Amino acid sequence: MDTLTAPQVITSENLLKHWQGHRALTRRVIEAFPEKEFFTFAIGGMRPFSQLTAELLSIGAPALKGIVTREEGAYNEADAAKLTTKAEFLAKWDEATAQINTSWKQLKTEDFSETFNLFGQYEFPIIENILYFIDNEVHHRGQGYVYLRALGIEPPFFWERY
Amino acid sequence: MDTLTAPQVITSENLLKHWQGHRALTRRVIEAFPEKEFFTFAIGGMRPFSQLTAELLSIGAPALKGIVTREEGAYNEADAAKLTTKAEFLAKWDEATAQINTSWKQLKTEDFSETFNLFGQYEFPIIENILYFIDNEVHHRGQGYVYLRALGIEPPFFWERY
Repeated sequence: MDTLTAPQVITSENLLKHWQGHRALTRRVIEAFPEKEFFTFAIGGMRPFSQLTAELLSIGAPALKGIVTREEGAYNEADAAKLTTKAEFLAKWDEATAQINTSWKQLKTEDFSETFNLFGQYEFPIIENILYFIDNEVHHRGQGYVYLRALGIEPPFFWERY
Repeated sequence: MDTLTAPQVITSENLLKHWQGHRALTRRVIEAFPEKEFFTFAIGGMRPFSQLTAELLSIGAPALKGIVTREEGAYNEADAAKLTTKAEFLAKWDEATAQINTSWKQLKTEDFSETFNLFGQYEFPIIENILYFIDNEVHHRGQGYVYLRALGIEPPFFWERY
């Protein structure tokens, strides 16, 4: 049995689909916020959802680009922090979706177990860094669900990943 | 190259480690709640963290057992809903940790792509069901973080997975 036909716990293609499914749901959560509350509403001293989204934008596409080019540029949230409207965030989100798809094509199955020092700071196997991006997004999006509920807004269904 | 040495995006062993790492963090979040607020505090009409935890307990170990035995028993939250103290929840959590480790040994790499009708209701490849368990836990735990912050309690670090 050669490499290509060997059974996989998850294939690279399906891991991308899984991540982009989560990203589609996060996009719906951004859309669900009223314009003002996206930038201002928070609970218990936490960041508003715009700032959580700025973090996600500063990880996903740039982090994956760092991984496939093996460039250890520092984490930089400055660009995403400059966005001032939901429309700008959504446009940047869609741009990142395309960038992630492009970068992903450069990942080979054997790359996932290689160690890479992401942002010059997080030295882990690439699969662990990628799972961290996804988990961090699910974590912060779950917080966004509480913000929406506190605002009396019904969040999208958790299984809406298209 | 044979099956055992073929490169994997993630190995079965590392996926278990990833899940149990998340479960260790969720356990810390349960511990961080004051006894009373674990059962009573919520935001925006949501469930208190005890009920979210009851859901997680009713999925994790029983769902994985269903998968490895291919038994499509219905989802049942009744047992976990009967727990009345944090100590009982934590004991049940630890029991589930051991059960998951035991069940996991029965999963072969080729099983993950097989379709199974979990709880007689969710017919998906096994890998998708397992990722759903993990994501659902991260999602609800993120909500628990907001509850803790609203209560003025510092949650554990997101990267504390041991």
